[in-house]
Amino acid sequence: MSEKLEVAQEKLLNLVQIMPTEMIELSESWRRVLAETIISTMDFPPFDRSPLDGYAIIAKDAEGTVPGEPVILRQVDYVPAGDVPHHTITSGTACRIMTGAPLPPGATGVVRLEDTIADGDKIIVLNGHGAEKNICFQGEEISAGEEVISAGTAINAGVIGMLAVLGKAQVCVFRKPLVAIIATGSEIVPVDCQLTPGKIRNSNSYMLSAQVADAGAKTILMGNVLDNVDEIALMLENASTCDVVITTGGASVGDHDLIGEVYEKLGITLLFDRVSIKPGMSMLAGIKNGKLYLGLSGNPAAAAISFEQLVRPILMKMCGHKTWWRPRVRAVLASPFNKSTGAKRFVWSQCWQKDNGIVAEPLRLQSNGMLKSAMIANSLIVIPENSPPLPSGSEVEVILLVNA
Amino acid sequence: MSEKLEVAQEKLLNLVQIMPTEMIELSESWRRVLAETIISTMDFPPFDRSPLDGYAIIAKDAEGTVPGEPVILRQVDYVPAGDVPHHTITSGTACRIMTGAPLPPGATGVVRLEDTIADGDKIIVLNGHGAEKNICFQGEEISAGEEVISAGTAINAGVIGMLAVLGKAQVCVFRKPLVAIIATGSEIVPVDCQLTPGKIRNSNSYMLSAQVADAGAKTILMGNVLDNVDEIALMLENASTCDVVITTGGASVGDHDLIGEVYEKLGITLLFDRVSIKPGMSMLAGIKNGKLYLGLSGNPAAAAISFEQLVRPILMKMCGHKTWWRPRVRAVLASPFNKSTGAKRFVWSQCWQKDNGIVAEPLRLQSNGMLKSAMIANSLIVIPENSPPLPSGSEVEVILLVNA
Repeated sequence: MSEKLEVAQEKLLNLVQIMPTEMIELSESWRRVLAETIISTMDFPPFDRSPLDGYAIIAKDAEGTVPGEPVILRQVDYVPAGDVPHHTITSGTACRIMTGAPLPPGATGVVRLEDTIADGDKIIVLNGHGAEKNICFQGEEISAGEEVISAGTAINAGVIGMLAVLGKAQVCVFRKPLVAIIATGSEIVPVDCQLTPGKIRNSNSYMLSAQVADAGAKTILMGNVLDNVDEIALMLENASTCDVVITTGGASVGDHDLIGEVYEKLGITLLFDRVSIKPGMSMLAGIKNGKLYLGLSGNPAAAAISFEQLVRPILMKMCGHKTWWRPRVRAVLASPFNKSTGAKRFVWSQCWQKDNGIVAEPLRLQSNGMLKSAMIANSLIVIPENSPPLPSGSEVEVILLVNA
Repeated sequence: MSEKLEVAQEKLLNLVQIMPTEMIELSESWRRVLAETIISTMDFPPFDRSPLDGYAIIAKDAEGTVPGEPVILRQVDYVPAGDVPHHTITSGTACRIMTGAPLPPGATGVVRLEDTIADGDKIIVLNGHGAEKNICFQGEEISAGEEVISAGTAINAGVIGMLAVLGKAQVCVFRKPLVAIIATGSEIVPVDCQLTPGKIRNSNSYMLSAQVADAGAKTILMGNVLDNVDEIALMLENASTCDVVITTGGASVGDHDLIGEVYEKLGITLLFDRVSIKPGMSMLAGIKNGKLYLGLSGNPAAAAISFEQLVRPILMKMCGHKTWWRPRVRAVLASPFNKSTGAKRFVWSQCWQKDNGIVAEPLRLQSNGMLKSAMIANSLIVIPENSPPLPSGSEVEVILLVNA
């Protein structure tokens, strides 16, 4: 069952559910996904307030100042920030007011402290122009009853600030999916081992755990296991309390490509066992009891691309995000891509702005087994299926490896 | 002492040091900054290996296959992944080989399993073209003695994978700077408080702690304090074990703008007390015993911009990053920006690609006290000093709010 990429993506996305919710402290909520829609119960600012230090006045009293002809007012009150006014302002009077303090009743403007001179309770206003603009009006940012932040919003610095304004000391977010990662392959040894002939270290598990974290989920590193159906099956059963179970290796067609066999043994229903993309063609997906099992390639660069295209979107959905996809732009190739392409291909690239357009440079090392390009790529060029070699200057679609 | 932005940035950057280093587990290293340069002690791949399941052969033996005229070889060995070959391949012989297994001596190519039929030890090669391409050569990604990753590299998924390849189970990274955040202002109450007249909640501390995390540093939330020199001074002294001390509020020119007074009381040398940008003009910086004290505006949007322009770069330097700046692009305004500008101005915006160019839309709410635009902006438009109002279509510089 080989699938086209878009069909495989849709199949998986349709099978996963958004995670249940949990309450967490606001201070822990950065990069989480809000699970409640926040409706304000009151106006913000909660009162007309001064945006600066100065004197609250009747704006008309001072609008006629010209150099050498100040207006003189009488101070009748003083409102530090956090306090409340005690007097109504009438024509000819002024109230000393601090940044953030509530405007006294009657006041229709604020003159800046720098534009005044105080002499006892006599306030000499040197420049009263535009005093009426120096008010932050009650409700000018948020009205009572307004929907301010919707469920599914990724919590960035601005959102955290707004949640604090609204008094959300605890917030309801979607739980992070827990992803088990298992490296299969008799050639694989743990990262802290010396290499003996024929062995390589488990790099996929660490790479994927960073990709999982970038998608907002959590990893359990289950380590590595030999090419043995029973041992792999036991690992998968141990991992079955997690929300998603990822293996690497054993995903293609040889004698030792055992993941399909393991799925069969465990009664995991195979969804597909090949996806028509390069790299990343070797990939299986299965489901049992509503839980997804994903078998990625043992080749690191291929596993990374399969993750980007097929695992990241489902984790983004499970995390509760509104957008599951990386941003894409149109770019032109800064140098040729000399391979013709059967299946849709993803090419590690660096892209940047040039002459106001965007150019993308295919990186030199694109082998499935290599990580050098993955370290420095900021993007992936998408080469459509059945493309001829593409000369420099060809227009291409590029996936930006940033969060949307 | 009002400073131009670039002068203030340089002043601060010159005063901070890169953090000391620490050893951490590889699995904890995502988004950290590598503090050691990694030189490989050996070749990778460590041996010539097969990228696929098939038969290692003398490539010349099978290059002449045509449909209906297969080549017949004799299997003399079998190398599963993780094992080592025991026979040399000579003309007419083949060795069954798994993905990732070492190539036997003598072999000069690998034919794919799908292109063969096995009959006992007789291997019928149906298609032997290009067998010589199916080898990953020892050292083709990394040579012994090669500098693979340099100190100052931000650890992404590809870098973690590469560190694992190289056996770095623990890695040396720069310590995260610890940033104390103190909200000053008698109008401020903690986020879990009901609002009484004249009060607003402490939103700056939470917003800034997310900005600190985004820059790769850690926060200690010290809470809020009244407009009182002694109380603020005590808080600052309590915070002095942190690497950077940030206050919000009390940063402008009124009676209750106390941070300058506090610095004087504590013997903190004032570096500047105003920066010519909007928003964010009200900002102080001081230094004592090599530690920076930064006094940001109490207005959230102004504090956020000051942080972006003046605090984030120093945290990025302290974290050990090579690049301290956000990426910038040229864009055209999607709609007019109708204010004339004295000091350099930063405008919350959304930008996207249009007709292969980039357009930027100034967001509607730009008031210093508001967070709505900070929640949804993906960029900041930079309006140069002494600009007239800018019509739609004007070319502008835009800072992308993503990590470089």
